[in-house]
Amino acid sequence: MNQVHRFTLTVEFGDCDPAQIVWFPNFFRWFDAGSRRYFVACGVPSWQQTEAELGIIGTPLVDTKARFVKPASYGDEITVESTVSEWRGKSFVMTHRILDAAGELLCECDEVRVFATRVDGDRKRIRAVAAPESIKALCVQR
Amino acid sequence: MNQVHRFTLTVEFGDCDPAQIVWFPNFFRWFDAGSRRYFVACGVPSWQQTEAELGIIGTPLVDTKARFVKPASYGDEITVESTVSEWRGKSFVMTHRILDAAGELLCECDEVRVFATRVDGDRKRIRAVAAPESIKALCVQR
Amino acid sequence: MNQVHRFTLTVEFGDCDPAQIVWFPNFFRWFDAGSRRYFVACGVPSWQQTEAELGIIGTPLVDTKARFVKPASYGDEITVESTVSEWRGKSFVMTHRILDAAGELLCECDEVRVFATRVDGDRKRIRAVAAPESIKALCVQR
Amino acid sequence: MNQVHRFTLTVEFGDCDPAQIVWFPNFFRWFDAGSRRYFVACGVPSWQQTEAELGIIGTPLVDTKARFVKPASYGDEITVESTVSEWRGKSFVMTHRILDAAGELLCECDEVRVFATRVDGDRKRIRAVAAPESIKALCVQR
Repeated sequence: MNQVHRFTLTVEFGDCDPAQIVWFPNFFRWFDAGSRRYFVACGVPSWQQTEAELGIIGTPLVDTKARFVKPASYGDEITVESTVSEWRGKSFVMTHRILDAAGELLCECDEVRVFATRVDGDRKRIRAVAAPESIKALCVQR
Repeated sequence: MNQVHRFTLTVEFGDCDPAQIVWFPNFFRWFDAGSRRYFVACGVPSWQQTEAELGIIGTPLVDTKARFVKPASYGDEITVESTVSEWRGKSFVMTHRILDAAGELLCECDEVRVFATRVDGDRKRIRAVAAPESIKALCVQR
Repeated sequence: MNQVHRFTLTVEFGDCDPAQIVWFPNFFRWFDAGSRRYFVACGVPSWQQTEAELGIIGTPLVDTKARFVKPASYGDEITVESTVSEWRGKSFVMTHRILDAAGELLCECDEVRVFATRVDGDRKRIRAVAAPESIKALCVQR
Repeated sequence: MNQVHRFTLTVEFGDCDPAQIVWFPNFFRWFDAGSRRYFVACGVPSWQQTEAELGIIGTPLVDTKARFVKPASYGDEITVESTVSEWRGKSFVMTHRILDAAGELLCECDEVRVFATRVDGDRKRIRAVAAPESIKALCVQR
């Protein structure tokens, strides 16, 4: 079982669209923040440091699937809850749920991500590598 | 068979993240633009007009699934190709593909959307309605 | 003297550009959040409510001037500090300062804003009205 | 006299806020795109190339002043017109105007920018350098 981490944010006016509800790409912004904050909360060093030490520049997204259940609007406090739900060979699944202040589900998302290194320093060519054991160990529930 | 529509855009510096590639929530921004532009290109009136005439405020997203194949970076010209791939009862599937200048696939996405009306004028309560036949007819390949 | 309000946020990976520092339009996003949060913290009702009661749809920006002193990057905790520094006839000045965790100034901004009402319900025609005395009173330092 | 460059874009649904008009930080997004596109149109190499050859990582913003005259909404075609209006010692002024399809001014902006190099490879410490003569020459009206 891996750790679960949460952060809470306030939906801003500018996060909403002319229908007065959160414009959905912003949910992906928050899922992405959840993924990064997850590793930080587990004690994984910054990507600058992992790039220097392991060549890992981050965890780009390969595949994502999201389900939107209930809209949110500005002024709402929402909580992003994230965990690594599965380690696969060269990829892993990060699962996010966004809840409103009453704990009701607004949306949920499964992201398939990889740990990536650059190929020959080319900014557009990246390669997936197996998740480092040191990083996996940091994520385990304690 | 429904119409297919395309638009081309240039990836901007600010669309890219510290890994120097497009930050993925921006792809959802472009998928969303593709969905709106699709209906415009098919001759569907603005959501202001459909709200006045049919109560329809737009086509919120219920569910989305995307696959990222190849990164893009700033200066790249990319093409978003969109179509309604399926009409269901109260929902429909909008399929997008984003291609680079060489025609190679960067990412693809299936969005399940609904035509929505407000419930009692509440900005956070919306209800799905069947796709109006007048709108479906406008989308057919001619 | 008007009240001063602050909120703190964490800079996200996706807020940064390929130069690895905050992409400056995001500072305007946070200045805008500061303006909205300021009125909320002072007890001003939501724009939905002011629209219903006073016809006021928000405080659009007329003019802005910002100075960028020091960059920030992802993981940084930054504080947005906002106040109404001046009430003018039909406009007012909102002054923001963004500080890093050590209290050093990252950037500052003067926004000239107006309280706006719609002209004939047209979404693109808005008119400035004098700041309601009830709102001004709520902002005074207590 | 320096060259003037223009590009046209369509305002998207997601560029607009609950007041149904363009959310102003997006104008800064387009001003920034105008600045980058300006140098590209003048024949200045990519920042990747200038970083390799001259150490220049881009043209960060020092100071900006914008005036918003008329709102825009989704579906509008708008044109961003950019020029270097002044070269100073270690900075320069980029002037942008955004016009609607009828040629009416929506907003205008003066940006003070610098050509920047990194200090000791630190991603948060950058230093302004004089605008390279080779770049200034490329911008001159021909």
